[in-house]
Amino acid sequence: MYELNLIGIGTGNPDHVTFQGAQAIREADLILIPRKGENKADLAGLREQIIAQVTETPPETAYFDIPKRRAEDGYLRGVDEWHDAIALRWQDTIASHPQAKQVALLIWGDPSLYDSSLRIASRLTPYPTTRVIPGITALQALTAAHAIPINDIGAPYVVTTGRRIRDDGWPEGTGKVAVMLDGECSFQSLEMSNFYIWWGAYVGMKEQVLVSGPLDKVAAKILETRAKARADHGWIMDIYLLQKL
Amino acid sequence: MYELNLIGIGTGNPDHVTFQGAQAIREADLILIPRKGENKADLAGLREQIIAQVTETPPETAYFDIPKRRAEDGYLRGVDEWHDAIALRWQDTIASHPQAKQVALLIWGDPSLYDSSLRIASRLTPYPTTRVIPGITALQALTAAHAIPINDIGAPYVVTTGRRIRDDGWPEGTGKVAVMLDGECSFQSLEMSNFYIWWGAYVGMKEQVLVSGPLDKVAAKILETRAKARADHGWIMDIYLLQKL
Ligand SMILES: C[S@@+](CC[C@H](N)C(=O)[O-])C[C@H]1O[C@@H](n2cnc3c(N)ncnc32)[C@H](O)[C@@H]1O
Ligand SMILES: C[S@@+](CC[C@H](N)C(=O)[O-])C[C@H]1O[C@@H](n2cnc3c(N)ncnc32)[C@H](O)[C@@H]1O
Repeated sequence: MYELNLIGIGTGNPDHVTFQGAQAIREADLILIPRKGENKADLAGLREQIIAQVTETPPETAYFDIPKRRAEDGYLRGVDEWHDAIALRWQDTIASHPQAKQVALLIWGDPSLYDSSLRIASRLTPYPTTRVIPGITALQALTAAHAIPINDIGAPYVVTTGRRIRDDGWPEGTGKVAVMLDGECSFQSLEMSNFYIWWGAYVGMKEQVLVSGPLDKVAAKILETRAKARADHGWIMDIYLLQKL
Repeated sequence: MYELNLIGIGTGNPDHVTFQGAQAIREADLILIPRKGENKADLAGLREQIIAQVTETPPETAYFDIPKRRAEDGYLRGVDEWHDAIALRWQDTIASHPQAKQVALLIWGDPSLYDSSLRIASRLTPYPTTRVIPGITALQALTAAHAIPINDIGAPYVVTTGRRIRDDGWPEGTGKVAVMLDGECSFQSLEMSNFYIWWGAYVGMKEQVLVSGPLDKVAAKILETRAKARADHGWIMDIYLLQKL
């Protein structure tokens, strides 16, 4: 029986890797690498670069295809089936390397944050001992780039998705909300004059772009910057923190 | 004029340090080290250990005393004066090393999360260029240790303090709440049969202890484990994630 290692690698800057992550990569017998991630950033060879940076004798790597996800209708059901399908790919790939005792996946950001690996791992039979190694999240790369705290003193903050901001509006009882997984600049659905925004795309990466200011003043600039960057690079990942004024 | 580097070092495990953090330590001319942190964990020589681990020619270090914080009455006002007082200590210490161009502080966890360094830095005159290097937070060390996601699929989560849980109760509109800065096991103020808890003390460290389960079933065990660990070590830091059932 093998052990599964989910290794957080940070958000595109190879120097986000921790000593613990580097050590776990060196100790792996087999590293599973997705051939096509959710976005093109995953294709950028970052994983190969990170492996090469931490060891001169890289562990064996095995590529697997990520199956297509069903359309947005019945969102949770679609996600569920998709996780089942990915688990089967992991299982097959691991089965064809029966000698591997330490199997690893390199996870974008931190495996705990809006990531499916733990849910996929729980579908493996028999369920392997699973070790999680934390990594720098996009949220941390965002607040570091802007040199800001995420919370007001002693106060709560909320982390949510673009869809939730559009569907449910501003969460009650908090002054600070971080938004991830937002393909649509969902801040536009808020009463923009009430907020300040710190926005970033490709945070932590050499392509990083940042915009901050009163939301009503900078919203147009963010939309424009985002559209242009996306066209230039062929893909984009962005994230932002909102402060209620 | 110098640059200020706030380097996140993780939460007690020296291997939480990132390559970026290690590089910033090596490039520093002067590292400010607090002589007495908010808790004894800061005294554990961890900072010296981390510096020694990343370089054989350690940069100069300068120790400064952390002034006492005023009592809990007028909490925010007390915090404000305290930050002013710490900023003066930084300023004096830096002024006595006029040759230092890269000044660094090693920050527990991540500088963005319930940490005062950015607010203290903003009081320095003239205000130095400030670079933040993200580090693994206690939240990530907690979720990694339990091998759990922090969020439900596509759903928001809240990060808050023990005081807020006691004063304001469960935040509306979320299934998952992480609690930090809680000296009083404030989960006891909730209707315990409605929650599941993943609790941890000294997360990421060799002293790490974990308890998880339905809150009403494990609350007594957490109280007991916490009291004993605190007595044994002379200090404790704990954190937990709650799931509404
Ligand atoms: C599926 S989630 C994965 C999050 C990841 N596990 C983490 O810890 O950051 C993907 C979302 O993270 C954010 N994200 C990830 N990397 C990013 C980056 N380099 N710049 C901006 N946003 C990023 C975006 O909001 C994106 O929609
Ligand atoms: C002043 S905050 C600093 C948080 C830090 N900046 C971070 O990123 O984790 C201190 C709180 O963090 C949590 N904490 C920090 N280190 C911890 C550890 N090793 N184990 C458990 N909780 C920890 C506790 O809730 C503690 O009250």
